[in-house]
Amino acid sequence: MSRAGDGPTGPPREVGRSPADRATLALLLEVAATPKPGCVDRERDHPDMRFEHFLAGATGARPGLAAAAAGERLGAAFERGVAGMAAAAGRNTQFGALLLLAPLVRAAAADGDGPTTSTATAAAEATTVADAADFYRAFEHVDVFAGEPPDGAAELDVRRGADAVSAVEERGVTLHDVMALAADRDGVAAEWTGSFERTFGAADRLGELSGPLSDRAARAFLELLAAEPDTLVARRHGEERAREVADRARELLDESAAGGPDAVPVHGSAAVSEFADDLVAAGVNPGTTADLLAGSLFVALERGAVSP
Amino acid sequence: MSRAGDGPTGPPREVGRSPADRATLALLLEVAATPKPGCVDRERDHPDMRFEHFLAGATGARPGLAAAAAGERLGAAFERGVAGMAAAAGRNTQFGALLLLAPLVRAAAADGDGPTTSTATAAAEATTVADAADFYRAFEHVDVFAGEPPDGAAELDVRRGADAVSAVEERGVTLHDVMALAADRDGVAAEWTGSFERTFGAADRLGELSGPLSDRAARAFLELLAAEPDTLVARRHGEERAREVADRARELLDESAAGGPDAVPVHGSAAVSEFADDLVAAGVNPGTTADLLAGSLFVALERGAVSP
Repeated sequence: MSRAGDGPTGPPREVGRSPADRATLALLLEVAATPKPGCVDRERDHPDMRFEHFLAGATGARPGLAAAAAGERLGAAFERGVAGMAAAAGRNTQFGALLLLAPLVRAAAADGDGPTTSTATAAAEATTVADAADFYRAFEHVDVFAGEPPDGAAELDVRRGADAVSAVEERGVTLHDVMALAADRDGVAAEWTGSFERTFGAADRLGELSGPLSDRAARAFLELLAAEPDTLVARRHGEERAREVADRARELLDESAAGGPDAVPVHGSAAVSEFADDLVAAGVNPGTTADLLAGSLFVALERGAVSP
Repeated sequence: MSRAGDGPTGPPREVGRSPADRATLALLLEVAATPKPGCVDRERDHPDMRFEHFLAGATGARPGLAAAAAGERLGAAFERGVAGMAAAAGRNTQFGALLLLAPLVRAAAADGDGPTTSTATAAAEATTVADAADFYRAFEHVDVFAGEPPDGAAELDVRRGADAVSAVEERGVTLHDVMALAADRDGVAAEWTGSFERTFGAADRLGELSGPLSDRAARAFLELLAAEPDTLVARRHGEERAREVADRARELLDESAAGGPDAVPVHGSAAVSEFADDLVAAGVNPGTTADLLAGSLFVALERGAVSP
């Protein structure tokens, strides 16, 4: 059957959507997945950060994601995504998720077989000093909750924003180097320097589970939360609180595991919903775990995951 | 302060987002707004059409919206949007909204002052026979609930899909002509040939109201629903049922009007939520009113509306 793209004005048809559109959808499915204890989800808002801000942030970030796919310098593409997110949402909704998505999108665009731990790591390792400077400039657009810098790296404190760029250039640190400095305190940085292992592991789980993609995502979130203490919770509330949250997530998974590992309904679980309400009320937000979920949803979408 | 876009690899920075990204956001805010009696919203799914399908449809449609902004033939851009929506969502989530958005996005991209009833009408009136052929081909991608064609226009029945293209070409009807044929039975077609009056009127309301944009959207939806019977409800369930729905919407607005016209909380209203649940349970979906809301949200976003 003929298609309008054959006509005089139509450019070549895109087959399906682009990595940038799939990354945008990953951000949307991440925020929609519910319950995600402590995070904004389809059923929960934070006092100053509501569901619709995440919708705006995701669409605002898309041009930056497209730039990452198109081969623009990765740090510049990331900064563009953060700037677009901040302009659209008026706050920081998805900084960490965009940092994780940047090398994943680059890897997906560069290789038609989909991103792998190897191609994503190659994209991360290819970053330069200029990418690191872009990264620091990205902090000018939004308030990001960052902890103390590592010993001996006060000049590279991200809270200095663009003022740290001269130190970055003098020391000659790449964006991958910056991530390595932060890997012990930041779960997204740990992915950059750790083969994106948790991201791809959660993507595997999303592929194994069945049902609506946002319901699978809610379960993957709880599994990620149980597996390792959330680093944003640790920075804000201390490591003990982060461990308590992980322990409670593990209990909830264990309690509900009688029906088999893939049959556990996290979506619709009253106990998980109660935990979610409690964490939101306490202001405990495992935002890094949500970032990992967004990355894993992107990988799953690239592999062809769809909602039935 | 220097920005990465000044550097060697950065293309010129986009100021804000593009009309296509704002149109995508309009689709997202439309589906998120709750309660929207009878429609999928943040709190309600239909049995075979869930919230996440609309997220996928909105991101899948974006390349078509971008093509409309870029000046591609309007019908071809629309067909591309529908194809992308259908591929991503696996069903028809936003066909009518995309038909309404196409001339609005074209008008927004062509004129930096934002779309107006005049520029949108000019975009609609500029369509040709080729656009009409594209429109019929779009029906090949999805199941759209369409009623009987007008008398004497059986050959132009949209249910024929691409098979109607030869009749379109023989008769020399433009897409605007096709909309004029359907305007008495389809609320989106009526916008195309009626100066987009309801779309811009609802956009005015969105600008007048205060609070979260999705809450303003819920009120604008109820006002649209009360003002005229929904044409999708009329096609599926009869004109009497459509009038009953409009009358009930009007009653709910009247009952809650004591606090002043702009103070009425539609979001959070138990009575409106009950009406929403009842319509979803009865399978009565005022989808055309939701299409108008999506168009009005786009106009409001182009005018700079943001969520506080």
